Amino acid sequence: MPDFVRRVPEGQDRERLVCRTCDYVAYENPKIVVGSVIHDGDKVLLCRRAIEPRRGFWTIPAGYMETGETVAQGAEREAWEEARARIAIEGVLAVYSIAELSQVQIIFRAHWAQPGFAPGPESLEVRQFIWETIPWAALAFSSVGWALETWHQGRLEPLPAAVLNPAEDRR
Amino acid sequence: MPDFVRRVPEGQDRERLVCRTCDYVAYENPKIVVGSVIHDGDKVLLCRRAIEPRRGFWTIPAGYMETGETVAQGAEREAWEEARARIAIEGVLAVYSIAELSQVQIIFRAHWAQPGFAPGPESLEVRQFIWETIPWAALAFSSVGWALETWHQGRLEPLPAAVLNPAEDRR
Repeated sequence: MPDFVRRVPEGQDRERLVCRTCDYVAYENPKIVVGSVIHDGDKVLLCRRAIEPRRGFWTIPAGYMETGETVAQGAEREAWEEARARIAIEGVLAVYSIAELSQVQIIFRAHWAQPGFAPGPESLEVRQFIWETIPWAALAFSSVGWALETWHQGRLEPLPAAVLNPAEDRR
Repeated sequence: MPDFVRRVPEGQDRERLVCRTCDYVAYENPKIVVGSVIHDGDKVLLCRRAIEPRRGFWTIPAGYMETGETVAQGAEREAWEEARARIAIEGVLAVYSIAELSQVQIIFRAHWAQPGFAPGPESLEVRQFIWETIPWAALAFSSVGWALETWHQGRLEPLPAAVLNPAEDRR
């Protein structure tokens, strides 16, 4: 483990992790989680987590964004990894900040690009739920409930904002 | 500098930065930039950069999100640091991915919470522009132009999506 200490580097205004030996500054950045509410009519897809934290609880397909991908690509990758689902992103449903974890969650609304789903290695079970059967008491995280509520309120409307990259800059 | 090598850690599916000495995995995460188009009628605020990259070019107030803050708080902080502007966030205008830089930009639409602006230490000059006078050829980054275009197209409409944290989880 590098020998970091927390101090204010010269010319800066807040504490950073600085190596005692070589003054290297390891900037700590908030982490981005990308995920999607995948809907089909009045049904949404949920995964029962096979891993900690919150093993056995239900979540939308979501996970840490990797370097070198767009937010939409990250959400598509997570849908495949956790639910073996091929999805088409419709737009940004919500942007949640979990400040105490320094985490930002970018949640998309998506529909099926191809039919079919199955548990990936991080899921015990994958199922579609209609609104009345969503297992509210067994959701893994508060933000899963927020995203489902937001989807339900606006599920019949288009998603005009927030926009993603212009088409010519999309990969 | 810690002695990192790039290799696939046991049980994972992609290369990570791993310390040769102690097997510590330094996850590289995409970085989040938060910024805002601050409008007042048909005018928007731009800052001329006092720092590299793109010193002397114009940008909206934006910068790296810090740990422990929400995306909206980050945009408010940057508006203060770069333009001495106190702003009120209206909603998310755009989410841009700059995949080759592993950067995600979350851009808000905002108006003035208090009147007044002035250059902060990272700005040479801060000015309001009407649409016809925006210095397109002297914008610092492509995404500044995207955000201004998006603002201009939808400037008379409310911003229904994407939603931020529910009110009871907002700080």
